[in-house]
Amino acid sequence: MRRVAVVGVGMTKFGVLADKSLREMAFEAFKEALEDANLAPKDIESVYTAINADHFSSQVSPGASVMEYLGLNPKPNIRIEAACASSSAAIRLAWLDVASGLHDIALALGVEKMNEAGRTTAEIIQFMGTGGDITWENHYGPTFPGFYAIFAINHMHKYGTTKEQLAMVAVKNHYYGAMNPKAHFQREITLEQALKSPMISYPLQLYDCCPISDGAACAILASEDVAKKISDTPIWITGLGLGTSSVALHNREDYATIPGTVEAAKQAYKMARVEPRDVDVACVHDCFTIAEIMAYEDLGFCKKGEGGKLIEEKQTYIGGKIPVNVDGGLKAKGHPTGATGAAMTYEIVKQLRGEAGKRQVPNAEIGLTHNVGAHGTYVCVHIYRR
Amino acid sequence: MRRVAVVGVGMTKFGVLADKSLREMAFEAFKEALEDANLAPKDIESVYTAINADHFSSQVSPGASVMEYLGLNPKPNIRIEAACASSSAAIRLAWLDVASGLHDIALALGVEKMNEAGRTTAEIIQFMGTGGDITWENHYGPTFPGFYAIFAINHMHKYGTTKEQLAMVAVKNHYYGAMNPKAHFQREITLEQALKSPMISYPLQLYDCCPISDGAACAILASEDVAKKISDTPIWITGLGLGTSSVALHNREDYATIPGTVEAAKQAYKMARVEPRDVDVACVHDCFTIAEIMAYEDLGFCKKGEGGKLIEEKQTYIGGKIPVNVDGGLKAKGHPTGATGAAMTYEIVKQLRGEAGKRQVPNAEIGLTHNVGAHGTYVCVHIYRR
Repeated sequence: MRRVAVVGVGMTKFGVLADKSLREMAFEAFKEALEDANLAPKDIESVYTAINADHFSSQVSPGASVMEYLGLNPKPNIRIEAACASSSAAIRLAWLDVASGLHDIALALGVEKMNEAGRTTAEIIQFMGTGGDITWENHYGPTFPGFYAIFAINHMHKYGTTKEQLAMVAVKNHYYGAMNPKAHFQREITLEQALKSPMISYPLQLYDCCPISDGAACAILASEDVAKKISDTPIWITGLGLGTSSVALHNREDYATIPGTVEAAKQAYKMARVEPRDVDVACVHDCFTIAEIMAYEDLGFCKKGEGGKLIEEKQTYIGGKIPVNVDGGLKAKGHPTGATGAAMTYEIVKQLRGEAGKRQVPNAEIGLTHNVGAHGTYVCVHIYRR
Repeated sequence: MRRVAVVGVGMTKFGVLADKSLREMAFEAFKEALEDANLAPKDIESVYTAINADHFSSQVSPGASVMEYLGLNPKPNIRIEAACASSSAAIRLAWLDVASGLHDIALALGVEKMNEAGRTTAEIIQFMGTGGDITWENHYGPTFPGFYAIFAINHMHKYGTTKEQLAMVAVKNHYYGAMNPKAHFQREITLEQALKSPMISYPLQLYDCCPISDGAACAILASEDVAKKISDTPIWITGLGLGTSSVALHNREDYATIPGTVEAAKQAYKMARVEPRDVDVACVHDCFTIAEIMAYEDLGFCKKGEGGKLIEEKQTYIGGKIPVNVDGGLKAKGHPTGATGAAMTYEIVKQLRGEAGKRQVPNAEIGLTHNVGAHGTYVCVHIYRR
C-alpha cells in the first residue's frame, strides 16, 4: 500500500449562498484546491463527488452535473453518499484509489445546496428526518433534533452532563467561528444567550443546533512520489476508520454513545499507530452540542461520561488538552452536509501546515477528523500527520 | 496491487416484486452470495451498497438501512451512486478496497425498488428524466426514451441503421430471457410483434425499451490468498474502466456514440491486456435497443457504424462472433437500476464458471460487463477471467 498525502485543499465560504448553484460552489472549491496544489485540471486523474441527498438539488445523479462543470469528463467519477459523512467517505475512497496504485492524483469533492428559494427550514428538517429509519421510526415524527435530544437526555441521566455544559460547546465554537472568514456564523455568543435561546427539542435549544448551510469543500490527494515532487507541505493521511451503526435507534443498546464512532476510532488509531493523547488538533462532528461531547468520549479524548467536564474545564480550547473545532465546527462554521467532511480536512491541513492564522494550534503535528452521517449510521475518522 | 477475484454472487429474480422491500431484496441476494462463496456474514470486512435514487425508497441514505438489515453493523459501509451504473461502481470500489490491501473480503451489493404501490410508470419515467441535465434540458421535457431516441435517429442517419435491426436486439434478448429463471420477462417475442408495438419516442417502440424492475444483486470479492483458499472457481477481475460523459447533451459532439464507453473500454482493455476480439461473452447496457448497438461499436466488437449489421448477422447470439446479453439483458432480464451492474457480474461469473446452463457460452474464458449510468454520464467496463 502506497503512502498518500493531501496536496491541496479548497472550500467556499459556508452559509446561505443564494447566488450560487451546486456546481458553481463545487467549481469555486476546486479552483482554490488546484491553486493550492499548483496543479491544472488535466493533472486530476480520478474524482469522487460527495453529495448527501438528490432531493436538495432536484438533479438525480447530481455528481455527473458537477463533474461536467469542473470540465473533467471523460475521467472517472463516482458519486459517494454516507449521509453527513459523505465527503469524508469520498476522501477515504480517493485515498484507496491512490494507495492501491490505480491513480497518482485523485480529487475528493463534497458539495451541498440545502437552502433554496421557497424551501422552508421545517421542510428541510422533515426531509432530513427520513435519514432516520423510515420503516419503524420516521413515521412517528422524529427528526434529527429529536434523535440527538434522546442522546442528550440519556447522557445527562447517565453521566450528569448539564445543559450549561452543552451550551459551553456552542460558546467555544462560536468563539472560533468568529475568527474564521469562511464560517457561516462569524460572531461570538455568551452562555446566557445560548441558555435563553428558544427550545427546539428538550434539552436542545437553538444554539445547541448547527445551521442549515450551503457550500463546497475538497481535497486533492497524491501518491508519495508525486506529493514530494509537487508539495513542500504534504499532509499524510496515516489512519482511516469507517464504522456504522443501526439506522433504527431501537436496535441500539446505549443512547449515550455512537457505536460507529467507537469502531471507526479503533480502526484509525490502529492504522496510524497513535493513541488519542497523541492528537494535537481535531475537527469533530458537532451537528448538535451533545454530539461534540459524545465525540470527546467515543474518540478517547477523555473517559466515558467526562465529556461535559472536558468542555467545562476549557480543555478543548487552544491551549487545553486537545483543541477541538477551532474552525467553528458545524455549529458556527456551518454544515452543508455533503461538504462537511472535506471542510474538516481543509481545516486540519491548514493547521498541520501552520497556516491557520489566528486560530493556529501551536506546533500541531497530528490531526484528526471525525465525521458522522445521520445519527451515526456512518462514521469516518481520519488521522493526518505533517 | 493485489489480484482480486469474485468468489460469490447472488441475485433475486428481477421483476415487479410487490411483496419485497428494498432491504428484503438485498438480504435475499446477499444470502445467495454467502452460500455461493461458502462464507458467513462475519467474514465480510467491508461493504459498498449501490442504490441509484433516494426517491424510490423514500429513505434518505438508504444504504444504511440495507446494512442494518444484513446484520453487518458496525463494519465499514458506503453508499455508491453512479446512476444506472451504481453497482458496477460499487464493484470497482470493492476491488480497490481489496487490491489496496485494506481488506481481504469485500461485498458490493446493488438494489433498487422502482415499483411502488400508487406510483405510475409516467411518474417513474419523469423522475428518472431528472438524471438528464436539469439546468438546461430537463425543463423542456426530455426523458430517457427521448434521449436514446436522439441517439437512435442519429445512428440511423449517420450509418443507415434500421428499425428492424433495433428490433432484432429485442428479439435476441427476449430469446435468452426466456431461458433465464431470474428474468423479468421470460418469453420470446417475434420481430413482427416488436415492430407492431406502440411507439414510445420515435424511432423507439415499446419493445425497444427495457422494463422498470425491482431487484437486488451482489458480488463478494476476495484477495488472491483468500480466493484460492475458499474457492475452486475464483473469477478474476483483470480490467477496470470508468469513463464519464457530459450530462448536458448539447455539450457532446456526436450523438451516435457514448464517449464514456469509449474511454472506459480503453482503460479496461489496457489494464487487462486484452483486445475486444479476446472477449468470449459480454453483458452490455441495453436500456434501449440502440444502446446495445452503440455498445457493440464503442466496445470494439465491430467497426463504428456496423452494429446494426452485427445483430442482423446474429453475431451476438451464442455461436456468433461475440455472444452479448445471453442472460436477457436489461431488455428482458430487467433493469432495477442500482442492481443492474452487479447482475451483469452475476451472469459473467456463472458463464466463466460454466454454470450458465442452457445459456452457457462454450468454453468462455474472458468476460466483459458494460454498465451505463443515465445517457453515459457514468460508464463502467469490467473485464473478468476464469
